[in-house]
Amino acid sequence: MKKVYIAGPEVFFPDGADIIKRKGELARKYGFIANSFEAGDFPSEKFAFGMAISKANEDIMRGSDFVLANMTPFRGVSTDVGTAYEIGFMCALGKDAFAYTNDPRFYDVRISDDYYAGKVGPAADGMIRGHSDGWMVEDHTMVDNLMLDGGIIARGGLVARSPDGVTLPWSDLSVFELALKAARAFYDKAS
Amino acid sequence: MKKVYIAGPEVFFPDGADIIKRKGELARKYGFIANSFEAGDFPSEKFAFGMAISKANEDIMRGSDFVLANMTPFRGVSTDVGTAYEIGFMCALGKDAFAYTNDPRFYDVRISDDYYAGKVGPAADGMIRGHSDGWMVEDHTMVDNLMLDGGIIARGGLVARSPDGVTLPWSDLSVFELALKAARAFYDKAS
Repeated sequence: MKKVYIAGPEVFFPDGADIIKRKGELARKYGFIANSFEAGDFPSEKFAFGMAISKANEDIMRGSDFVLANMTPFRGVSTDVGTAYEIGFMCALGKDAFAYTNDPRFYDVRISDDYYAGKVGPAADGMIRGHSDGWMVEDHTMVDNLMLDGGIIARGGLVARSPDGVTLPWSDLSVFELALKAARAFYDKAS
Repeated sequence: MKKVYIAGPEVFFPDGADIIKRKGELARKYGFIANSFEAGDFPSEKFAFGMAISKANEDIMRGSDFVLANMTPFRGVSTDVGTAYEIGFMCALGKDAFAYTNDPRFYDVRISDDYYAGKVGPAADGMIRGHSDGWMVEDHTMVDNLMLDGGIIARGGLVARSPDGVTLPWSDLSVFELALKAARAFYDKAS
């Protein structure tokens, strides 16, 4: 059975343990093992604890066949950066990669609407840029920065999105399940 | 000569080309080659262009010895997610990793001050959480999510910060240069 590294910011949520448990159950339903480490003897000092969790996660990633990442925007307009690191890590290892988001909008729409409140437009160089700072609004009809979508899609994966106009709560796992189905089809086709 | 992959969101800035050029010159000053692709025949369609740039960046990373990443918060409280992907990618390839930030604050301070406007505090489980959403405020005396700092530091790198209380503009490369110096010392010691 293929092992999946389930990546996302749920660990920070009050109901994160429940969401992570339900994700593991759904993964099993599709014939995958959700790979994670046992809560063990981690050091208590803040920095040492952080280093230990980082190493534990990297070890688990090395022992997994693919990543299924939650790319729903976290505290801003983009994917949680820890999750972004992990997508890159798995892609570099030659693992497979799948992702989902409960926000249906492409990256350029989120940046324009949520970060610039619509105050964007074509600059002298033809690029769409924020009026306040002149920063380019990246638009590749992708869910997030091109390195994330690009890395996932180039490896045969996908970034599943909630239906147009529908933003789902973090606890809703219907789009997560779509990504799981895609992973299942990917491995069934390969075998 | 070691080749450095210079990662950061400067490509989105109006003065990004100048900053990237100056970074390349500084890299050379410390005996490194700044590795990048030539502007070439990329497809014009948005999605295909994004995929092509993703692949080009991944190829350049594979051909580089280390990453020097700009972790200054970008459009929010965290590192640009494309840069986070690239740090993870390089760490997984067994490359060396260095980073810097022009914002001296640790992650927990930025989250508390900039995202929650100070409205955070201990929750029933003892964790510091945002009052509005109950999300945990990660605190490992690190610059960003533990996967980023952890991955870099575990490989002998560092995340250089601007002096306490001093936030420097994106165009200021003094902290970038500190990270370059650290990389130089790292390779001089290893040789």
